[in-house]
Amino acid sequence: MEKFKHKLKSPVISLLTDFGTRDYFVGTMKGVILSIYPEAKIVDITHEVSPFNIMEAAFILKNSYNYFPEGTVHLVVVDPGVGSERGIVIVKSRKYTFVAPDNGVLTYIYFTEEEFSIYRLNEKKILSEQPASRTFHGRDIMAPIAARLAKGETPEEFGDPIDRFKVFNFYPSSFQKGTINGAIIYIDKFGNLISNISEDFFDRMCTRTGRKKIKIKCGDHEVSDTVPSYSKGKKNAISAIWASHGNLEIFVREGNASKKLKIKTGDKVTISFIRN
Amino acid sequence: MEKFKHKLKSPVISLLTDFGTRDYFVGTMKGVILSIYPEAKIVDITHEVSPFNIMEAAFILKNSYNYFPEGTVHLVVVDPGVGSERGIVIVKSRKYTFVAPDNGVLTYIYFTEEEFSIYRLNEKKILSEQPASRTFHGRDIMAPIAARLAKGETPEEFGDPIDRFKVFNFYPSSFQKGTINGAIIYIDKFGNLISNISEDFFDRMCTRTGRKKIKIKCGDHEVSDTVPSYSKGKKNAISAIWASHGNLEIFVREGNASKKLKIKTGDKVTISFIRN
Amino acid sequence: MEKFKHKLKSPVISLLTDFGTRDYFVGTMKGVILSIYPEAKIVDITHEVSPFNIMEAAFILKNSYNYFPEGTVHLVVVDPGVGSERGIVIVKSRKYTFVAPDNGVLTYIYFTEEEFSIYRLNEKKILSEQPASRTFHGRDIMAPIAARLAKGETPEEFGDPIDRFKVFNFYPSSFQKGTINGAIIYIDKFGNLISNISEDFFDRMCTRTGRKKIKIKCGDHEVSDTVPSYSKGKKNAISAIWASHGNLEIFVREGNASKKLKIKTGDKVTISFIRN
Repeated sequence: MEKFKHKLKSPVISLLTDFGTRDYFVGTMKGVILSIYPEAKIVDITHEVSPFNIMEAAFILKNSYNYFPEGTVHLVVVDPGVGSERGIVIVKSRKYTFVAPDNGVLTYIYFTEEEFSIYRLNEKKILSEQPASRTFHGRDIMAPIAARLAKGETPEEFGDPIDRFKVFNFYPSSFQKGTINGAIIYIDKFGNLISNISEDFFDRMCTRTGRKKIKIKCGDHEVSDTVPSYSKGKKNAISAIWASHGNLEIFVREGNASKKLKIKTGDKVTISFIRN
Repeated sequence: MEKFKHKLKSPVISLLTDFGTRDYFVGTMKGVILSIYPEAKIVDITHEVSPFNIMEAAFILKNSYNYFPEGTVHLVVVDPGVGSERGIVIVKSRKYTFVAPDNGVLTYIYFTEEEFSIYRLNEKKILSEQPASRTFHGRDIMAPIAARLAKGETPEEFGDPIDRFKVFNFYPSSFQKGTINGAIIYIDKFGNLISNISEDFFDRMCTRTGRKKIKIKCGDHEVSDTVPSYSKGKKNAISAIWASHGNLEIFVREGNASKKLKIKTGDKVTISFIRN
Repeated sequence: MEKFKHKLKSPVISLLTDFGTRDYFVGTMKGVILSIYPEAKIVDITHEVSPFNIMEAAFILKNSYNYFPEGTVHLVVVDPGVGSERGIVIVKSRKYTFVAPDNGVLTYIYFTEEEFSIYRLNEKKILSEQPASRTFHGRDIMAPIAARLAKGETPEEFGDPIDRFKVFNFYPSSFQKGTINGAIIYIDKFGNLISNISEDFFDRMCTRTGRKKIKIKCGDHEVSDTVPSYSKGKKNAISAIWASHGNLEIFVREGNASKKLKIKTGDKVTISFIRN
């Protein structure tokens, strides 16, 4: 029996992959979905995840999934291990269903969603006329399952409940001797540098230290405070902001911070509290 | 009372942004729209406007908006001033509704549409449960309004009528001493160089001068006439054409004129009338 | 009278072009389609075919078209000859309808589909209020026809049956003195090198030679066998696989084979059978 029955059904299926849009991969998956479920509304989150970059895909999913209608099926295919023994999981939470390889790409979902059930695909349960190709499970296994789940079938029809699943280390920021230590975890297309330091964690450390004056460091660069909006940043200078994703972001107003500062994913960011 | 009641309702919402497609921005906006208006048909015009390039976005909108069904809501988010005091406008014309920052991105609409009403968003009228983020008005303010307008709500529910709005200088071509002076205003992905000289203006100057023989100059390059179709251009040579957007365009058949001629947006183009 | 009446009607129209997604071309075509047929479900196969590359577009179409619902209209606009005397064709097979310039882009369809009817657009039959532009037949001629075919009109309303149409030489692989000679015909966005040697042809040559041991050569590089899945390739080494498209593919696990091997489309690939 299904634990989470979505009150609202939705024909929306979101796609998040590293397939790019110049080949036939994405179009083919959409064709497969519409062949099974003609009423499906397919929405691209993105197909331009860096090839095989599970952490990047996980961050994109975290920042978008809960803006979708209740009942949405989120299909994530970033799958360096296609054809290996890695499993495929179906995760059902109060509002959403996720289909993805069991490689950690749902890590943030497991931490954010309060309750969920998780199933591992059982190949014996999916008896299809055609055997799946060895290289394109997105088209041959995951897209059909996403379509059938959106149509109303239950995860039990495809898999068995499990309680062990893969997560990656997502390096939470830490606090030591008056300083929050973090790292850049994502760089968006404007070159904005997104850290793993959340405003929430920062606020708690403010309260704990009783200090408000700060110094932000990213690489060799220093910023003395955050600004309330991008337009308040100085032109061509480095600024910091608590951005819409909830984390500290380093940016250059109408410029590209990543290029200007030569900062890449994994580089350190710190916020030091200074004696008032 | 609403001045323009579209005879036909349409669930189509078009999107035109500089967000790119590799992050979660566009997918998130689509999720927001579908959460409010599940029947919406979302169509991407493009998300690859050069970052913050208002003139480029305006040209793209001008060349596409009136091919959409009557009742379409066009949502434009190219917004270097997000979070500043710049307003957000809703423009309603005979056939379409536009939602955009008040930064000039609708300039051509104001010049092309014969009649329209214009409203500035009144934040007091949009009481939402969640406060808008400081950095992502596309997701938090503009996408919800576009969805509600497409659903049938009226601009009066969100804003107040205004009669001052921002336009940019769009450099119309001019005529002096037997020569039309223009400039390249857009370069498309094939590298075709699109000028601001319209066929209509050219025809009037032909009549005025009584001359038909011309010489077209773009940078150091000369062309002696226009050709009737791309396939009539000489291979690897520079040609000129009155293209589907109605303006003079410089191209290289099956090649990239922008790269070959090293011409960029803003560079001069002239058409000189020669004694027959 | 129509020969092929699709049992199932489908509102799906797929788009395959070399227009890119940064201009207004694709959005405009979608607006045109929805204006004629508001219920259309438009699906992008890709818009990033290399400019004017008919063979690339043909390969992408071959690998995606038959995953779409029965009744789908596939609209292909890769059209270096726009405005020339090249015709526009409508092809109707048992399950699909195709609209494309008559330039060979449907070559694989003619070879794959068992039965089909083919019509050449007759301009006298398309009396439209507005004349078509000289440069944008995708928007002005082909998109409207695709929309009207998807809506239920028949090819006879737009064109006349023909039995001569353009195909390109698609270099099938050949067998000589114990070696299959092939070539790279497509490179996907991961840099995987896709050859024209099909698994089916290989199997027949295995039977004919009675040999199973092979040596694969691509440029200066040798591989001694195929692996059953990408994850079985050695990291940073060259591997070969019978991939989801049915042909031999050369890849580097979690890497880019095209960059690593400096191989491009047209380069040779061979499979030699070795004495057991």
